[in-house]
Amino acid sequence: MDEAETDGADEDGHERGTSLWERLRLPGGEPVDLARHDAAATPGGPDGKAAGKAATARIGEQLAGLQERLWAASTAGDRRRVLLVLQGMDTSGKGGTVKHVIGLLNPAGCRITAFRAPTAEERAHPFLWRVEKALPLPGELGIFDRSHYEDVLIARVRNLAPRAVIESRYERINRFERSLADDGVTLVKCFLHISYDEQRRRLLRRLDKPEKRWKFAPSDIDDRALWPAYQDAYERALERCGTSYAPWYLVPADHKWYRNWAVSTLLLEHLRELDPRYPEADFDVAECRKRLLRQS
Amino acid sequence: MDEAETDGADEDGHERGTSLWERLRLPGGEPVDLARHDAAATPGGPDGKAAGKAATARIGEQLAGLQERLWAASTAGDRRRVLLVLQGMDTSGKGGTVKHVIGLLNPAGCRITAFRAPTAEERAHPFLWRVEKALPLPGELGIFDRSHYEDVLIARVRNLAPRAVIESRYERINRFERSLADDGVTLVKCFLHISYDEQRRRLLRRLDKPEKRWKFAPSDIDDRALWPAYQDAYERALERCGTSYAPWYLVPADHKWYRNWAVSTLLLEHLRELDPRYPEADFDVAECRKRLLRQS
Repeated sequence: MDEAETDGADEDGHERGTSLWERLRLPGGEPVDLARHDAAATPGGPDGKAAGKAATARIGEQLAGLQERLWAASTAGDRRRVLLVLQGMDTSGKGGTVKHVIGLLNPAGCRITAFRAPTAEERAHPFLWRVEKALPLPGELGIFDRSHYEDVLIARVRNLAPRAVIESRYERINRFERSLADDGVTLVKCFLHISYDEQRRRLLRRLDKPEKRWKFAPSDIDDRALWPAYQDAYERALERCGTSYAPWYLVPADHKWYRNWAVSTLLLEHLRELDPRYPEADFDVAECRKRLLRQS
Repeated sequence: MDEAETDGADEDGHERGTSLWERLRLPGGEPVDLARHDAAATPGGPDGKAAGKAATARIGEQLAGLQERLWAASTAGDRRRVLLVLQGMDTSGKGGTVKHVIGLLNPAGCRITAFRAPTAEERAHPFLWRVEKALPLPGELGIFDRSHYEDVLIARVRNLAPRAVIESRYERINRFERSLADDGVTLVKCFLHISYDEQRRRLLRRLDKPEKRWKFAPSDIDDRALWPAYQDAYERALERCGTSYAPWYLVPADHKWYRNWAVSTLLLEHLRELDPRYPEADFDVAECRKRLLRQS
């Protein structure tokens, strides 16, 4: 991270002196009031949509380079990997982030899982079981579109488990994430924060465009009645599972271009911090060269 | 497919009148002589590297659109999906194809599996077991970087199973692929054909560039001594497993730009043939619109 205290912004619209992860990181352990966070804000971001898209494309090239180094390092025993967790209300842009940000990377190194309503088999296991099966391997970037947090979000709002069970899950999640961090997993947990009005606009757009209607279900309207309960459940999760080893980032997501820029920047900052290196050759390069040239 | 018998090429360098799948498709059931196929050829392709890259980028946009339709259709019960099988000698560009062609698509809809030497658990199961677990779900594009064909390629060359067992696998593969086709899987099997000399050039490049050395192993040189045995094993697989429901395409791959253009074009032709459609709304759009606007 560039720690220089200079003013101004670099070419990717990133103000010098403050990393985005410092700006967007929630402190954890403290009450969160989502109503006080402007979902249309663009903290630290480029100046508008066009600049944001251009900056994200440039960041994508840097991400792809670091991703290859991370993978290369894993072939020499480096166990480190990254897990991007995307959470947010319906239409907040989890799928769009995968398409536009993860789409900039080499898909071979990305392990993407969209968690939907658990199957009967998944429900028969502890709630972290299906999550453990989807973890990235060393060198990979894992992406969770929804995650184990659903078990303290929809599960809480819809009373899918006894309250005491749900209460116990925050600490179980923290222990789980701690063990991941200890095993070389860098967690980047992003809450995509949209406003109630922006969700309405996005749902209307899905209705109005025939090629978007398949994304819509009438139950999406009913779910909006639960908006306050969901915001409350998110506030608890962000407070209780924001830790030093796996903090939450609050990404204002009313502007899609900002959301994409912010998530790609958070990934970039974390990958730069990891600073993965191409491994040195463990063989005699000159000798191999000679052998190759000797072959008829 | 455009069946017009006109001359000339369209803007993607694709000569009108002949689809690429007709050009590159091996007949199947007939002996294949790989030495008679020029690995540096560019049949039906754009005029050179710059034009090829530009054409591939344009094809990528069309692919992404069709991919979304395929996914959307699956949400309404359409079980169809596509499985791209990439086979070829070391350095033939299987990984590069994933990076440059599959990288043009939405990664959320791609299920990519790189098959390496089987684990002890995989060896304890029938050889198709690990392949079945990696199949694409309805609406997805599956990508195999190596595949069940390794069990009649390296297994044959290195005598990893009794000859009679290997002989039985061709027909087992055909039955397996037939059942996939019956279940809505469109198989696009690409043999990336490179020359012995081009492989040497690529191995030398891996040696000469420090950031590429991690891709190299001295055993790659030893493997080149088995080149004729591998070519023979490929010829048998291409002959015996080239079927009407799952033909093999021979993609000349000495030119990376042509390989990327050809694989993306083959995918495009198959997806166009599938012609997936966005599903119609199964709810009252106007009523939903009113309800959304009524919400405070």
